Amino acid sequence: MKLVIGNKNYSSWSLRPWLLLSFHNIPFEEERIPLDKSDTQDRIAACSDAGKVPVLLDDELIVWDSLAICEYVSECYLGGAGWPESASVRAEARACSAEMHSGFPEIRNRMPMNCRAMGRRVELTDALRREIARIDRIWSGYRQRYATAGPWLFGEFSIADCMFAPVVFRFRTYGIGLSQQAAGYMQHLLGADALRQWMMQAEAELETIEAEEVGR
Amino acid sequence: MKLVIGNKNYSSWSLRPWLLLSFHNIPFEEERIPLDKSDTQDRIAACSDAGKVPVLLDDELIVWDSLAICEYVSECYLGGAGWPESASVRAEARACSAEMHSGFPEIRNRMPMNCRAMGRRVELTDALRREIARIDRIWSGYRQRYATAGPWLFGEFSIADCMFAPVVFRFRTYGIGLSQQAAGYMQHLLGADALRQWMMQAEAELETIEAEEVGR
Ligand SMILES: N[C@@H](CCC(=O)N[C@@H](CS)C(=O)NCC(=O)O)C(=O)O
Ligand SMILES: N[C@@H](CCC(=O)N[C@@H](CS)C(=O)NCC(=O)O)C(=O)O
Repeated sequence: MKLVIGNKNYSSWSLRPWLLLSFHNIPFEEERIPLDKSDTQDRIAACSDAGKVPVLLDDELIVWDSLAICEYVSECYLGGAGWPESASVRAEARACSAEMHSGFPEIRNRMPMNCRAMGRRVELTDALRREIARIDRIWSGYRQRYATAGPWLFGEFSIADCMFAPVVFRFRTYGIGLSQQAAGYMQHLLGADALRQWMMQAEAELETIEAEEVGR
Repeated sequence: MKLVIGNKNYSSWSLRPWLLLSFHNIPFEEERIPLDKSDTQDRIAACSDAGKVPVLLDDELIVWDSLAICEYVSECYLGGAGWPESASVRAEARACSAEMHSGFPEIRNRMPMNCRAMGRRVELTDALRREIARIDRIWSGYRQRYATAGPWLFGEFSIADCMFAPVVFRFRTYGIGLSQQAAGYMQHLLGADALRQWMMQAEAELETIEAEEVGR
């Protein structure tokens, strides 16, 4: 199994399936295609017609899109354990994940993921504040509700944690203030071995993408 | 079970789970909250903290987000039959669906769904052309590949068809030219009983949202 990803420092979508595979110690090969280079598009197009990373190659099968890769890994390598066991909790975890997948344009556009950058600034417009507040309610609400089942968003580690991992880096880079519960969740994710490993590898990368270096 | 939706004429995300439920004749109650009115936000907030439609209410459980609702319905009401049976085809169907869910910003922003409108115009910028071409390759490619299994995108009807249904209305409204295979798929979807029913109900709605009435 091979996972094709972008720069660890910048590629927020790549982090999600990488984290799921890494957390569960599923063996996989990694191919890194640095974004924003002259041959980037061609290299990605060679493995996926969608033209984006991440892409999972498993034998003949090509699975693209971070959420779909996570679903596939859960079904075929984790016996479904990528999601909470209860059907109703699973529905909530999927709702948070799909909301994240399709929404939050302000956070996405104005606070690009930049793992190794700290102390960056962003103007907190009303629209951005609303999105941050919604994330805070998700993190604090579910973390509190499922605390007895474990320290992750829905108790045990799930795909929902992978979907929010890039946001944790964004909030860290731009110094976003959160409620105590939400900040606790963020610290918990940042402390996970797999995430620390990603961060160290991001720091070791040499490429810089100017368009992503905002807020200095 | 109750599905909370927006205007049938305009609410593209609402159409997706509505179509899945309707196609499979799963009984559900429908609550329509017209968008863009003074009480819209309050009415949506009363059922979902995410503040968006569609929302599915099933007993105590609240499931929001169109893709997550479809996953829930497939698991709990269709024994998984919302997706193709083969794990690898399912992975492809989920990849197309998640790509649709998170992407295609040009199609989304510049060609808002407006079921009853015909003959509208949109400027075909390069970015828009690229997105349309990608949709064309998805539709023509999978439809051809799985033709022997049935007339839908992956043979039998699946959640992927629900995810693309709003795009079919968009392409019809703005008169987008497609390859023969992709156009055939579009005609097939437009001819489905459930979609025709949605269209008739959209035509019967009295509200007009000016911001969505583009391209005249
Ligand atoms: N829906 C996709 C989005 C992936 C995406 O936008 N990836 C970006 C990098 S993080 C990309 O590949 N950009 C390369 C390009 O557009 O050339 C997913 O979740 O995997
Ligand atoms: N990710 C969501 C997006 C839903 C969405 O954006 N819905 C729009 C209408 S189509 C909405 O509720 N807008 C109301 C508002 O923002 O006030 C989904 O797939 O359900």
